[in-house]
Amino acid sequence: MARSTEKKNAFYAQSGGVTAVINASACGVIETARKHKDKIGKVYAGRNGIIGALTEDLIDTSKESARAIAALRHTPSGAFGSCRYKMKSLEANKREYDRLIEVFAAHNIGYFFYNGGGDSADTCLKVSQLSKATGYPIQAIHVPKTVDNDLPITDNCPGFGSVAKYIAVSTREASFDVASMCATSTKIFVLEVMGRHAGWIAAAGGMAATENVDLPIVILFPEVKFSQGKFLKLVKEKVKQYGYCSIVVSEGVQDRSGNFLADQGLKDAFGHAQLGGVAPVIAGLIRDKLGYKYHWAVADYLQRSARHIASKSDVEQAYAMGKAAVEMALQGKNSVMPTIKRTSSKPYRWKIGEAKLSRVANVEKMMPKGFISRDGFGITKKCREYLEPLIAGEDYPPYGKDGMPKYVQLKNAPARKKLADFKVK
Amino acid sequence: MARSTEKKNAFYAQSGGVTAVINASACGVIETARKHKDKIGKVYAGRNGIIGALTEDLIDTSKESARAIAALRHTPSGAFGSCRYKMKSLEANKREYDRLIEVFAAHNIGYFFYNGGGDSADTCLKVSQLSKATGYPIQAIHVPKTVDNDLPITDNCPGFGSVAKYIAVSTREASFDVASMCATSTKIFVLEVMGRHAGWIAAAGGMAATENVDLPIVILFPEVKFSQGKFLKLVKEKVKQYGYCSIVVSEGVQDRSGNFLADQGLKDAFGHAQLGGVAPVIAGLIRDKLGYKYHWAVADYLQRSARHIASKSDVEQAYAMGKAAVEMALQGKNSVMPTIKRTSSKPYRWKIGEAKLSRVANVEKMMPKGFISRDGFGITKKCREYLEPLIAGEDYPPYGKDGMPKYVQLKNAPARKKLADFKVK
Repeated sequence: MARSTEKKNAFYAQSGGVTAVINASACGVIETARKHKDKIGKVYAGRNGIIGALTEDLIDTSKESARAIAALRHTPSGAFGSCRYKMKSLEANKREYDRLIEVFAAHNIGYFFYNGGGDSADTCLKVSQLSKATGYPIQAIHVPKTVDNDLPITDNCPGFGSVAKYIAVSTREASFDVASMCATSTKIFVLEVMGRHAGWIAAAGGMAATENVDLPIVILFPEVKFSQGKFLKLVKEKVKQYGYCSIVVSEGVQDRSGNFLADQGLKDAFGHAQLGGVAPVIAGLIRDKLGYKYHWAVADYLQRSARHIASKSDVEQAYAMGKAAVEMALQGKNSVMPTIKRTSSKPYRWKIGEAKLSRVANVEKMMPKGFISRDGFGITKKCREYLEPLIAGEDYPPYGKDGMPKYVQLKNAPARKKLADFKVK
Repeated sequence: MARSTEKKNAFYAQSGGVTAVINASACGVIETARKHKDKIGKVYAGRNGIIGALTEDLIDTSKESARAIAALRHTPSGAFGSCRYKMKSLEANKREYDRLIEVFAAHNIGYFFYNGGGDSADTCLKVSQLSKATGYPIQAIHVPKTVDNDLPITDNCPGFGSVAKYIAVSTREASFDVASMCATSTKIFVLEVMGRHAGWIAAAGGMAATENVDLPIVILFPEVKFSQGKFLKLVKEKVKQYGYCSIVVSEGVQDRSGNFLADQGLKDAFGHAQLGGVAPVIAGLIRDKLGYKYHWAVADYLQRSARHIASKSDVEQAYAMGKAAVEMALQGKNSVMPTIKRTSSKPYRWKIGEAKLSRVANVEKMMPKGFISRDGFGITKKCREYLEPLIAGEDYPPYGKDGMPKYVQLKNAPARKKLADFKVK
């Protein structure tokens, strides 16, 4: 692997959907780089992810105070802007890869840190191959992030623990609410959660109930084809037993034919297709078939940006992944991703591992079968043991006297451009 | 006013939609009553509100430990069950009022504490009149509660501050999220909030942005007739300036003809009417007219049960209202409600006042005109000064090692029945 001996600058960018803790990873990258000023010069951040690299729209993070960078640890969202942009193969898009090398060379960038999920791991892998293909020395390290928890090899992904905590806490709270109302009013509460392919987030709803806190929670996983008959029967049983029922439904639930339940062809008064969520579809089904009064909620972005209820272990791991990525770069590594290796669940212990990007890119980790209860509507003890440490601990942001969390907005000062303009297609 | 000299028991019940802090009021009532055992015997709670009184389904709160009662202070929802049930006038429903007296007499109840909003203030008023009408000595004190903040005389209502904090924090968090995504993806985030008649909760969304935290927030109030043209123009301007826009929409927004925007006659694939929220309607409008990529969320019960992000001043006031209600009863008062009197906004100072129920029942307090900005889409400085102290301070519940808040589920042991069954119509 190519290792530069002269002092090089670093590039860091955020990719895909942002999370409550992706900035904690940014904080880990930048703070660690700043501790190694002998080896790493500036950290340039890509404005809006990899697009910032292609358009030479680099943010000079050295212009930010230590305090502002430290505040990234408790600030949700992507402080430098993220993007949904997947680069094609080296062969199919030589123009863009050439441009990356041009920008890296112009700004003396030798380290590439890319913070994202499966797609960005793939981009990172391709960048790592530029070294060989072009001779330009670049070390590409992927920093894992995704609320979907679907990256392979790593035990879990930073970003997931906090959304899981939000869903678990919210489901418990709303269930308490419905329990109060059910005698004369609402008997059903439906909460729609993210996770189009994997049911990790929906599973977190199951954490609302425990041995000591008995609540009727029914989960609809994307991994389990929706059976209307079984579902309605179970909900009816729960209402009979508890007086109410909470339903946590993944946006990705499909019927037996593989169609998303959310795509029910809703039309508004003008005949326009209406993009529904799946929550109102489930609620409508219950109204039509069982006649119970219901309420429904769609958490959407609230769940992944809820830094106010972030999991402490998630924040720590997000930071640790950023730090480890820089340390790996300093060890001369390329084309790798730091991972979280669980060594014990009770008590929870983990250490940092390492995965080759070739084994990470474009691989989606699904929920193990053994995590979903036999009836398909709940989580198993094994799943509970896996999830519990990930939502453990609180890590509150500081609040102002005005009652609002103090999230930082960076200056995001641009580095001076040195090259001609470049259009991203 | 009738004042009993012998030691009497108390009745407490929760009414209407529950909140994150109504149990803090219950805690205030029960803890204060327990401090006056020389004057107040047991506190019986109505199972499912006033229905528990009518059906003689009384919960004996003396069976709960001091620790369990203390935990009510940090537990959302209605611990004894609430109800949506408004009693008719004394003349129209003599049967039910006679029954109340029968139950009160059978259980030696001399104090009636009813915890709710405008409808329950009306019920409480009617109960207070039973003293005169029947000669049975009963003191009825109303304990204010409503997320809608629409009770008159009191400066604000317990329950509102916490939902306002939730909406303000969530809107800030989601706005940060969209800001990260807007270059290549989502440009519009729509959050639907509660408040069918008054825009207090929607106004809280405006607190997400401040002088120091510049965010584009557009609010749709139920008080302002929806103007599609003006709205779309403003959203377009915000997107031009910021790259994105957050929209906080009250469920009660109406068009110029007075129809709820939420009632857009959605039909599902089978032609059934679909109860939409207003958020997807607004999102669909933006897609059709401006073509921006959007996301939408409906907070529903999550907002009013979110004890994890309760406002400290709200929790304190909820408790104080319960305590004051018992103290008023001990002073021999009847047909009153403790109120919150603001004496200063900066620094925030308040004291406990008192309102006659005849002036509270069935009066709805709307947002003052001076609280909505001239264009109709934002809040004024005056509104900000009013809201800020209400969302100030954090009051976190305790968490277990499992990462979950420790909310209490009471035993809710029934008191022995002494009367024949009674059916609520």
